[in-house]
Amino acid sequence: MSAPVVAVVGGGQLARMMAPAATALGLHLRVLVESGTSSAAQVVVDAPVGAASDEAAVTALAQGAAALTFEHEHVPNALLDRLAAAGVPVRPGAAALVHAQDKITMRRRLTELGVPCPRWAPLPDATALAAFLAESPDGTAVVKTARGGYDGKGVRVVRAADEADDWFARAARPGAAPLLVEERVPFTRELAVLVARTPSGEMRTWPVVESVQRDGVCAEVVAPAPALAERTRARAVDVAVRVAEGLGVVGVLAVELFEVASPDDDPAVVVNELAMRPHNSGHWTIDGAVTSQFEQHLRAVLDLPLGDTAPLARWTVMANVLGSSLVELTDALPLVAALDPGAKVQLYGKDVRPGRKLGHVNVSGDDLADVRARALAAAALLRGERA
Amino acid sequence: MSAPVVAVVGGGQLARMMAPAATALGLHLRVLVESGTSSAAQVVVDAPVGAASDEAAVTALAQGAAALTFEHEHVPNALLDRLAAAGVPVRPGAAALVHAQDKITMRRRLTELGVPCPRWAPLPDATALAAFLAESPDGTAVVKTARGGYDGKGVRVVRAADEADDWFARAARPGAAPLLVEERVPFTRELAVLVARTPSGEMRTWPVVESVQRDGVCAEVVAPAPALAERTRARAVDVAVRVAEGLGVVGVLAVELFEVASPDDDPAVVVNELAMRPHNSGHWTIDGAVTSQFEQHLRAVLDLPLGDTAPLARWTVMANVLGSSLVELTDALPLVAALDPGAKVQLYGKDVRPGRKLGHVNVSGDDLADVRARALAAAALLRGERA
Repeated sequence: MSAPVVAVVGGGQLARMMAPAATALGLHLRVLVESGTSSAAQVVVDAPVGAASDEAAVTALAQGAAALTFEHEHVPNALLDRLAAAGVPVRPGAAALVHAQDKITMRRRLTELGVPCPRWAPLPDATALAAFLAESPDGTAVVKTARGGYDGKGVRVVRAADEADDWFARAARPGAAPLLVEERVPFTRELAVLVARTPSGEMRTWPVVESVQRDGVCAEVVAPAPALAERTRARAVDVAVRVAEGLGVVGVLAVELFEVASPDDDPAVVVNELAMRPHNSGHWTIDGAVTSQFEQHLRAVLDLPLGDTAPLARWTVMANVLGSSLVELTDALPLVAALDPGAKVQLYGKDVRPGRKLGHVNVSGDDLADVRARALAAAALLRGERA
Repeated sequence: MSAPVVAVVGGGQLARMMAPAATALGLHLRVLVESGTSSAAQVVVDAPVGAASDEAAVTALAQGAAALTFEHEHVPNALLDRLAAAGVPVRPGAAALVHAQDKITMRRRLTELGVPCPRWAPLPDATALAAFLAESPDGTAVVKTARGGYDGKGVRVVRAADEADDWFARAARPGAAPLLVEERVPFTRELAVLVARTPSGEMRTWPVVESVQRDGVCAEVVAPAPALAERTRARAVDVAVRVAEGLGVVGVLAVELFEVASPDDDPAVVVNELAMRPHNSGHWTIDGAVTSQFEQHLRAVLDLPLGDTAPLARWTVMANVLGSSLVELTDALPLVAALDPGAKVQLYGKDVRPGRKLGHVNVSGDDLADVRARALAAAALLRGERA
């Protein structure tokens, strides 16, 4: 046997959850991990240790690979360009990935594509912020670092132009990421659309989901989004497909959206963030859809025809395990299993830290209130709370 | 993190398919593999090489393990007894496992338990075979080696007492397995019941399936068994539960059954074979049930409460890939994916040999004829046949 090699940069839970899909399809997964105890290193046989910015390490990783892909966006673009020039199938390519790396580049391109975005502007200084605030209906604005933010980090809501002075000072340093400012969208809820795209241009979307954030971090996902107006759903899918196509994405793309109420009860959607990789909003697909986002990502980067994205149940709810009072989450397995024989637990093998994404639980069924309560109860046990 | 260790003897596809389940539950899988290229060795990080009969290797494997379990029955019982005496949680224990290792022991015990079996007898010589044949309504009998047979090997249908002389000669050698003889059951079809049992005594069964054999090897499984009379279904489940309980099985037990027609249209069941591990008749559960047999086996050997065994679809059909004209089965992935976006492919990473189990395909849906045709078509492509 000499199976096709899929090389993945990054050894967190997203790379870890690609492993079962690779096993099923008979693919050889090779993952560049941060350390020998990384989440993915525990379950991937071929897991060299190295930094995503280490050109020699990434080059060696890609050696002989049918595709080089990523579980995060922190790979230098110049490095990817050099690899692509040397013939490595970099998927998604640097020209697409830059839109998930740099929010200014992303906003500029989405605006060109006519994709609905919050009102936004590059933010060179406090004067620009004052000007932006002057136009804000509610007197607030959201300042963001263009690069390196995630899970609510690199985002600050301000009410006055001097509330970001420390960030301006930091952005002025050589090599620092610039800032941008966005309106604070008066959203009714957050939605997400997951789409996969192949180099050949085939695209498939999963049902639009509702994502419930707590402290800027995804806490729950409900699939499909409850009581979603058909026109809103179609708009959300249309946005995701236009972004995937317009940016030339290959692999899984997560488009996080704000749903915005309208006077005529015809909610609009506005793009919040993009991620070009499997995403927390798609973990429900592991147990809740015919094809999981992890299998689909592998198919897409190998330019295989995509899998069926139909749901397996009427409702699936994913509840994240964010932090825990337990030292070993596996200690809670007897409690979770006793509480709920249908709870599908996924643990990431990570050391416990406050608020850290340590695992998730999927529950599927016909009754949304029941399914949601079950997912939350199982996740609570894994956080060390007693039922 | 220090996850519970589950130690598995044997590095074939059954151990390989435990890996995704262990990953999800955050368990540490340690597998004793036949070689560094074994099916399981490709996807399990902790995979020492050694023989199942090597006491030092199995002892090292079990070191610190929360459970020692098996993907085949070929571990010497005396070795397991010594490990158990030394405090290793051997699951299933040697006292149960012997019934999957030795068909005479199995028949004797099932007969004691009142579980329906074919007419059978130990077979010391040709005289005994002649006596058995004299009682046979159709003039045939099935001679079996008590140990070491699988997939139709170690089984011979005879019509005369001298047709097993070579086997008698072999059985007479020191250390050779003895023979037994069974009636050739006039079955209408083959069924299988999969049951899991924990050390605490919890048991769960999956829906009874129909298993279609070709040349003594499982080729297809249809879940649930079509047009199964409710009384027959209940009998099949009752047999499996009585066997699991009566033999003190821990982990997954597969009970292969013959369905036998009766004049009053009330089919009976007769036990054919037992396997105390995940089994080919349960591969459909990976994609077709809330809890797969592989996750359930891990739960059971760790004495965790068992998972829900409900099916995810009305029908799931599993088609085995037995041999292939391809050198690399992954070469067929583009064809299979293009043919059927809903086909769930599982490849075992094994070198191609005629008739060898190289992988399987699961397809689920509402229309049995369609689901079955799709599973067979996808498996045919993986065997190198063109659609």
